Amino acid sequence: LSASTPSTFTAAALRELVGADGVLVGAEEMAPFLLDHRHLYRGRAQAVVRPRDVEAVSRVLRYCHEHRIGVVPQGGNTSYCGGATPDESGRQIVLALARLDRIRNVDADNFSLVAEAGCILARVQEAAAEADRFFPLSLGAEGTCQIGGNLATNAGGLNVVRYGMTRELVLGVEAVLADGSIYDGLKSLRKDNTGYDLKSLLIGSEGTLGIITAASLKLWPQVRAHATAFIALTDVAHVVALLELLRAHGGDRISSFELLPRVAVELTVRHIPGVTDPLDAAHPWYVLCELTAARADEPLADLMQGALEKAMERGWVADAALAANERQRAAFWRLRESVPEAQRMAGPSLKHDIAVPVASLPGFIVEAAALVAQLLPDGVLVCYGHAGDGSLHFNVNRIDGTGVTAFQEREPVLRRAIHDLVTRFHGSISAEHGIGQLKREELARYASPVGLVAMRAIKQALDPRGILNPGKVL
Amino acid sequence: LSASTPSTFTAAALRELVGADGVLVGAEEMAPFLLDHRHLYRGRAQAVVRPRDVEAVSRVLRYCHEHRIGVVPQGGNTSYCGGATPDESGRQIVLALARLDRIRNVDADNFSLVAEAGCILARVQEAAAEADRFFPLSLGAEGTCQIGGNLATNAGGLNVVRYGMTRELVLGVEAVLADGSIYDGLKSLRKDNTGYDLKSLLIGSEGTLGIITAASLKLWPQVRAHATAFIALTDVAHVVALLELLRAHGGDRISSFELLPRVAVELTVRHIPGVTDPLDAAHPWYVLCELTAARADEPLADLMQGALEKAMERGWVADAALAANERQRAAFWRLRESVPEAQRMAGPSLKHDIAVPVASLPGFIVEAAALVAQLLPDGVLVCYGHAGDGSLHFNVNRIDGTGVTAFQEREPVLRRAIHDLVTRFHGSISAEHGIGQLKREELARYASPVGLVAMRAIKQALDPRGILNPGKVL
Repeated sequence: LSASTPSTFTAAALRELVGADGVLVGAEEMAPFLLDHRHLYRGRAQAVVRPRDVEAVSRVLRYCHEHRIGVVPQGGNTSYCGGATPDESGRQIVLALARLDRIRNVDADNFSLVAEAGCILARVQEAAAEADRFFPLSLGAEGTCQIGGNLATNAGGLNVVRYGMTRELVLGVEAVLADGSIYDGLKSLRKDNTGYDLKSLLIGSEGTLGIITAASLKLWPQVRAHATAFIALTDVAHVVALLELLRAHGGDRISSFELLPRVAVELTVRHIPGVTDPLDAAHPWYVLCELTAARADEPLADLMQGALEKAMERGWVADAALAANERQRAAFWRLRESVPEAQRMAGPSLKHDIAVPVASLPGFIVEAAALVAQLLPDGVLVCYGHAGDGSLHFNVNRIDGTGVTAFQEREPVLRRAIHDLVTRFHGSISAEHGIGQLKREELARYASPVGLVAMRAIKQALDPRGILNPGKVL
Repeated sequence: LSASTPSTFTAAALRELVGADGVLVGAEEMAPFLLDHRHLYRGRAQAVVRPRDVEAVSRVLRYCHEHRIGVVPQGGNTSYCGGATPDESGRQIVLALARLDRIRNVDADNFSLVAEAGCILARVQEAAAEADRFFPLSLGAEGTCQIGGNLATNAGGLNVVRYGMTRELVLGVEAVLADGSIYDGLKSLRKDNTGYDLKSLLIGSEGTLGIITAASLKLWPQVRAHATAFIALTDVAHVVALLELLRAHGGDRISSFELLPRVAVELTVRHIPGVTDPLDAAHPWYVLCELTAARADEPLADLMQGALEKAMERGWVADAALAANERQRAAFWRLRESVPEAQRMAGPSLKHDIAVPVASLPGFIVEAAALVAQLLPDGVLVCYGHAGDGSLHFNVNRIDGTGVTAFQEREPVLRRAIHDLVTRFHGSISAEHGIGQLKREELARYASPVGLVAMRAIKQALDPRGILNPGKVL
């Protein structure tokens, strides 16, 4: 098989395995599967294969293993790192999981549900809510992304400060390994010390160690009370102390703690219809904080107010607005959630998805901002994100539309400087978006060399023919 | 080297690597390291090696790798499964981590601390408390067990229902791999998606994939309020509904939810000085439930009382005592925590460390009790434990001291029946104690065959010479 002649033999064989309607080979029908969400990568493929159940996934993997065909799993195709896009050889196939879309089971008493990989995240949230339960994973793409992809990339999002990353929300997985064998690890147990943690290994491996086909997910009591505040800091240095104070006041009730710079307010007010500044005056930094509880009668607003008054006395907080109703709460969140869209409308941007220890956030921001001012004086820093986890979208925007090419040419220099700084702060060069193909070289540069050796050994052990999402992560 | 002639060459070489006082070879000084906590296994060893730092551990591993000497890591030697005891060949060495006992760093603002493997668990708890923080791992052996062993076995304990197993309490690890290379994964980040989750893989691998030498641990706000109740159920069937009601009332504040049968009260009252029955009348089943909060002024007692009143109205709860002060709270916990000791004093017992989905607990208990009555009619079922996690110490005691041998001879038959039943309930044959050498054959029998193949491939990849804790887990 040469790269330029997609095999009709393969397509025919795949149709045998998954049914005729499960194999796409036409250029037009394949196109949406071959372009990544950020339009950074356009790949080619022999076929897009859409199995309906785990047995069909198993048959496809067995076939591809035998014929050494690379398999690129794809969920909602919302990767920020090109993690679900095939290479340009035309030799690989895309394995789209969208048709594995059943909620197999909701067990309210056990606070768990079993969803297949292709379930849209929002659908999983709904299935939990229908059983009066709460599934906390929440992120911008939740109406499009699929739970299998969320697991494959160990997605983060807005509620990590309280509930943890995806890995911490999963009780068990079902996955198909490279040779087509089906690993049935779909237990719904809170305690299970029977051997190595294959579940955690598969989660976050971006489809390079196995294809997750279903997961048993942890549920929580339904959330019935919110207190949501839009808080202006006097100085970004106080973000750590504010978080600590809110934790002391609110106990474990902080479910979101998001940092926003002034420019994020300006951009969203300018570009997103209906967004207004929640506060009267301008302030350099803001925190959007939400407390939640399972009891409708918890005095969350009092807790929030008490903490904010203390923070004002101490000079950390300049002003704050507490959402008085669901409409105001939605407005605060709309501002926060439309920052990426406002950025896009303002112009191209250089993005970094980084994390540092929470206590180091202010120091990191000051030093990193100085680097931007020095290396890209015509860039506008839009640094925001999940401060409660030490995670930042450290983006630099070109606002006025001029000099775009020169701006983008500085990307490698800025990236190197930022990632070097992250490393000096004992941070992460990929907080929540993963590695994919975008950061493969960065990983090779910044990861622990011993860790890399171990990762490669594991990859070799579980996928000796290298057919699982080739060219991703390692 | 033959099994009967421990090598003086090895001992001399090891002394070079860790210092003269770090190598024990005398029979008497080695004896405590060669006998397991339950006195089920007595091994032999060339030497007991006690390095003081990670570099010395690395040198020892490199040496043992080169000379193909089996290395058995040992922390507080409190394994219930013979996981830290060498075999009888006399060829292996014991690697005692006790001297790696520094708290390297406590970062209150980041809610994290870094402890070396040999730190006693209680010392880690204290270090957190000194910084006004809380480290939630808590179990019977906390005054003896070491945090490295807790990680190696993914320890569970009393607070899992709220905080999760050990794996969920860890931000990063430092470990020495089979060839002596040092994996520096000691990050203190809440979000880090840079490659495979080596941390979770090493945690719970019982020293068979690497030797954990230090860990970065998550801390929580210090606990300042408790409400502790000793609750009599009308029927074990109501335990699930009671847990659900308490979750709805108490939100995420349930930190312990322990099930006890009547016989546990009787045994502790009889055998443990000072233990009294907290309630006036006898009841078939009890729950010891504790709510905790970070704010001293949280109305936890009101929450508990409200939930219990509702549970009584519904007929689930017959009676309950709410601890009025710290002394009463300690008395409830003393009863719970001395069940294993009371069992020991009552006579030999057959132990099973199992878990099922929480909602299946009552059904499992009824069926399993019927099996015991049928297979061991002279046994007394002492089934208790962490019901909030679906985890049970399913033990059968021989009370009157007669027929002990016959009783123990039935062990394999009972074990098979219980583990078969656990499997039918989609449960775990090792909820929190791990596999060690005790359950290796059970794991081979009950684990997913595909999972076992994957585990063996990973073991082979990371420890190709098989020197790390040989004969454990796989």
